[in-house]
Amino acid sequence: MELEAICKAAKAAKYEIAALNTDKKNEALNKIADLLVAESEAIILANARDITTATTKGMSIPMIDRLRLNEDRIRAMSEGLKQVAELPDPLNDVLEEWERPNGLKLKKVRVPLGVIGIIYESRPNVTADAFALTFKSGNVVILKGGSDAINSNSAITGIIRRGLKECGINENAISLIESTDRETTVQFMQMRDYVDVLIPRGSAGLIRSVVENSKIPVIETGAGNCHIFIDKTADPIKAKSIVINAKTQRLGVCNTAESLIVHEDIVKTVFPDIARALHDKSVEIRGDEDALSSSEFVVPASEEDYSKEYLDLLISVKTVKSVEEAIAHINKYSTHHSEAIITEDEEAAEKFLKGVDSACVYVNASTRFTDGFEFGFGAEIGISTQMLHARGPMGLKELTSYKYQIRGNGQVRG
Amino acid sequence: MELEAICKAAKAAKYEIAALNTDKKNEALNKIADLLVAESEAIILANARDITTATTKGMSIPMIDRLRLNEDRIRAMSEGLKQVAELPDPLNDVLEEWERPNGLKLKKVRVPLGVIGIIYESRPNVTADAFALTFKSGNVVILKGGSDAINSNSAITGIIRRGLKECGINENAISLIESTDRETTVQFMQMRDYVDVLIPRGSAGLIRSVVENSKIPVIETGAGNCHIFIDKTADPIKAKSIVINAKTQRLGVCNTAESLIVHEDIVKTVFPDIARALHDKSVEIRGDEDALSSSEFVVPASEEDYSKEYLDLLISVKTVKSVEEAIAHINKYSTHHSEAIITEDEEAAEKFLKGVDSACVYVNASTRFTDGFEFGFGAEIGISTQMLHARGPMGLKELTSYKYQIRGNGQVRG
Repeated sequence: MELEAICKAAKAAKYEIAALNTDKKNEALNKIADLLVAESEAIILANARDITTATTKGMSIPMIDRLRLNEDRIRAMSEGLKQVAELPDPLNDVLEEWERPNGLKLKKVRVPLGVIGIIYESRPNVTADAFALTFKSGNVVILKGGSDAINSNSAITGIIRRGLKECGINENAISLIESTDRETTVQFMQMRDYVDVLIPRGSAGLIRSVVENSKIPVIETGAGNCHIFIDKTADPIKAKSIVINAKTQRLGVCNTAESLIVHEDIVKTVFPDIARALHDKSVEIRGDEDALSSSEFVVPASEEDYSKEYLDLLISVKTVKSVEEAIAHINKYSTHHSEAIITEDEEAAEKFLKGVDSACVYVNASTRFTDGFEFGFGAEIGISTQMLHARGPMGLKELTSYKYQIRGNGQVRG
Repeated sequence: MELEAICKAAKAAKYEIAALNTDKKNEALNKIADLLVAESEAIILANARDITTATTKGMSIPMIDRLRLNEDRIRAMSEGLKQVAELPDPLNDVLEEWERPNGLKLKKVRVPLGVIGIIYESRPNVTADAFALTFKSGNVVILKGGSDAINSNSAITGIIRRGLKECGINENAISLIESTDRETTVQFMQMRDYVDVLIPRGSAGLIRSVVENSKIPVIETGAGNCHIFIDKTADPIKAKSIVINAKTQRLGVCNTAESLIVHEDIVKTVFPDIARALHDKSVEIRGDEDALSSSEFVVPASEEDYSKEYLDLLISVKTVKSVEEAIAHINKYSTHHSEAIITEDEEAAEKFLKGVDSACVYVNASTRFTDGFEFGFGAEIGISTQMLHARGPMGLKELTSYKYQIRGNGQVRG
């Protein structure tokens, strides 16, 4: 189907999907979860075609691994759908309710966003994941996946649509744009008359391209140049374990720490042991002069290092004289995702929590907790790094808007 | 000052303004309110230059009236500032608070959006108004007003900056872009590195241009093709007074009714009297065949009439067979601003409230109530017609975002 036809069909389905009751949605999610497992052979076959193309093209082994689907991964996808079915339906909650002196009764009620476009890269499990979250929150989704995963995405979408149909639900609750050329992607971003919100998921380059080209309101997700500030009163044991966890537990994700800020009072005492531990984990440490002169494992940092989201075995180090200087450094270089202070000083903690302008600000905990599951949302569509609409991990509630329902008995404005 | 320098200075002020305490902000608002009255002669003089230019250019009398400032209007502006000082500070509210099984304590806290750009047209009172709301909510504002009001806007901004300075507050909490050419406006919309949110206020053309050109996240405001549906059980007295109020109480505003939907069962009984009342108020009625054959005051409507925001002595009429058909008509043609049903049938009311996809949906009340003051917000920066962030009237709370503050005692992710 051509792009505009897909968008029109999605819009035509939106009020039907918005009106589905919770039981019906959960029934469909469970049914589709079972279908995915039952059809895993077909999915793996389609995926094999993508893997062959990727191998021929010389794609790197880790990238091929991200692309690969097997029985286990399909079972995990299926489990994901069942988990979303268990989550409470975010729709129709009354968020506020009040009465005006003229007798008008106002209710602010949660409603879906409408048609959500999701533009993403190679991992095909996003297909099922994005469907589950948008569908449960009463939205219609149009997916634009990467060309590398086109056969896998197409197989998964086909099974989801079949499952919807078998439940008597409009299958246009999900559609996949099959053309994967750049031109189609840019055209998709202009489809303002049909699509209410665009959510890009993937590399910094993808997100930048969507932000630059979209005429549709965007929720910007992703990039995380996350900082950890080791204050002068930091507990050295907590500091070391948090830094090691935040930097090395998973390298390629947005809530990984990329920069260490160290109070000058402890750069010669607490920092060297942390530097050694990072070095033992094969992390290259790029620091300023104070850091360099405090540990043999530090190499010189350039100004650019402080703005980088490495997603690699690299970390930058900056030495500061105060919590205020740490806050200013973070607010200058951060992508406003997640930052932590390690301190035993309540006043410094309070300053940091107030002063740092990021979606998630931690005291004595790893930045790796910025995640919808870790926050207890039960699901996650991404981490917003913008100020509008939602900030930080986005679960089902963040995929909704609201409307005002107002009841009167003939009131007119004077 | 050139555009980029203005944007940089605004960004440099943002954390200072975000951190101001409530008393300090209120002191400044009250002081500036007094200064505006004390300096009214200078403002009126600057305004006279704008009026002279407008007259020379042949601007229409109603437009010149919108542009004009006199003692009364300056006093009203000043009163507006004092009223905003009286409103509760929206910042630092704890929106949610919970603890995770691993002992992490999470707080969701309200924070400012940051730097807000406001692009508006000829009414110079918006200058003081927009400052009051953005400043009270802890934001920095950059104003881009229309060329017609440049001298007035410049005088008002100058007085506000002087007042801020006298209170010891960074005067870059407000700035005005003095170049009024289109090129500068388009450049302003690209200033993503400095400006967090853009809010256009003005004509449909202005808003469209911002939505099309902006790389900064936009809150779309304004356009209202508002509908009133007279159901078959409507109380004829309520129906008539609500229709007359919604259509004629003020013509040029976004919450004015532009289209009437009439249930076919009452088109020959209830509608003719309403048509006569509209005619008596000089409203031209453009209707479909059923409407035409029911009242001598109806002329034929074209398909285009149903999509129009007339802002004039015009209304369209569509006859339907059911509440479902009314809902479908609205969801097709509406700008999703405000719609009303007039009915004595609770079931029809409920269907309408649920099914109509607009920011404000009314039962037995005039659409004219869609307004921050009428909702009890105490202020209003505009009416959002988009799904993201805020929907409907936006007061101080809608000019904020949030962040998560998370306290641990050494937690790392497993």
